[in-house]
Amino acid sequence: MCQLLGMNCNVPTDIVFSFTGFQQRGGGTDHHSDGWGIAFFEGAGCRVFLDPAAAVDSPVAALVRSYPIRSLNVVAHIRKATQGRVALENTHPFMRELWGRYWLFAHNGDLKNYAPTHTGAYRPVGETDSEAAFCDLLHTLTAQFGDAPPDHDGLGQAIAAWAADTARYGVFNFLLSNGEALFAHCATNLAYIERRAPFTKAHLVDEDVTVDFSEVTTPNDRVAVIATVPLTDNETWTTLSPGEFAQFRDGVRVR
Amino acid sequence: MCQLLGMNCNVPTDIVFSFTGFQQRGGGTDHHSDGWGIAFFEGAGCRVFLDPAAAVDSPVAALVRSYPIRSLNVVAHIRKATQGRVALENTHPFMRELWGRYWLFAHNGDLKNYAPTHTGAYRPVGETDSEAAFCDLLHTLTAQFGDAPPDHDGLGQAIAAWAADTARYGVFNFLLSNGEALFAHCATNLAYIERRAPFTKAHLVDEDVTVDFSEVTTPNDRVAVIATVPLTDNETWTTLSPGEFAQFRDGVRVR
Repeated sequence: MCQLLGMNCNVPTDIVFSFTGFQQRGGGTDHHSDGWGIAFFEGAGCRVFLDPAAAVDSPVAALVRSYPIRSLNVVAHIRKATQGRVALENTHPFMRELWGRYWLFAHNGDLKNYAPTHTGAYRPVGETDSEAAFCDLLHTLTAQFGDAPPDHDGLGQAIAAWAADTARYGVFNFLLSNGEALFAHCATNLAYIERRAPFTKAHLVDEDVTVDFSEVTTPNDRVAVIATVPLTDNETWTTLSPGEFAQFRDGVRVR
Repeated sequence: MCQLLGMNCNVPTDIVFSFTGFQQRGGGTDHHSDGWGIAFFEGAGCRVFLDPAAAVDSPVAALVRSYPIRSLNVVAHIRKATQGRVALENTHPFMRELWGRYWLFAHNGDLKNYAPTHTGAYRPVGETDSEAAFCDLLHTLTAQFGDAPPDHDGLGQAIAAWAADTARYGVFNFLLSNGEALFAHCATNLAYIERRAPFTKAHLVDEDVTVDFSEVTTPNDRVAVIATVPLTDNETWTTLSPGEFAQFRDGVRVR
């Protein structure tokens, strides 16, 4: 099983604390060592750091830990290969452009006998079911809405419908972001926490590290973090149910 | 003026030596400090490292210098902003997918009154003339060839024709790669060198560093390096003429 990590905020926030614990799951406290990646939206731009090696001893991960990039939306992934070799082109998150925005996608699971048709724009470069699904999503949105994106509600509904349809093929936990919102679909494991004032101390599960968020935040900050398994052991995380779809904007789950 | 650097090889080669000199041009020996980027093809996959800060004191550049990534095709760029703010979304190289391959593009120059129409796939995320041109190229190739790429000759001819057409709008030096070939168009400044056996020592212009390529190569290696201004002061570089288009495959210029 792969590991997913996402963050959605109302002010640019660094993810160094969460990533510190998450990184240990790539060959340290867990055995997923078939590559990893993390992508940060910064304004309209996007930085994607990929490494087909294990996260726990990756020089790229060392950079990410020591170089706090402030972002409103982050998607990260540690891979346990199911479909597709261990190779850079099969390393999540994947990035494409639609409607003049970058989109990021990372998947934990396994789709069986899944073979969407790919013509025109949005064709997979690698061999994973995950990238095939991402390309199919962008195709589906283009076919449904043409040259202009729908409003927030319409977009969320379209993605939720596509996710439910695609989940018929197998295990389909994913994180998706267009830089504005973070979308999540749970098949088996996803949990989230919404942090807001009054901020307190948090302690990692995977490494003995504590951060006092009250020292690094302002009263209006809102930060949602979502992961395959909770990253801290002294906070209350909300577990998503199988088949549940969630959308986060400005650090808050949209109901 | 921006600075371009490209490499095309027949065996995966690291670019640490060339990048060491090139990096100095981003705020050290030259004054281009409006961001920089470098992208490496590794198999079908692609790693893009971007930093909107100056290259000379960038922690991302320090990683690239100390972590030799072996690649057949590399495109790098140091930016002097002409059109578009200093921002991540305006930082080269740009990446898109076409025909199931990633493509990279970096531009040095300035296109005036240039406003290609962007609908459907391939729309700019940032504000640069450069990304607009790249999107226009991918549109042009799709319109011309549909769902399947042409052969090498046909592809080179189509890109050369588009480059000549677009160059009517202003200064248009660019590097482009699809992971197989490196394409270059010269408007004002581009020079290249093809290294092959017998390999000798090379000394950087921008920093007092020498490498003996005979110690790090095999007799069959072929490496072409192309840059805005020659990177070494003891080798003979070939200067491209204004309007000249060049294509490199397997470390050799295709004639």
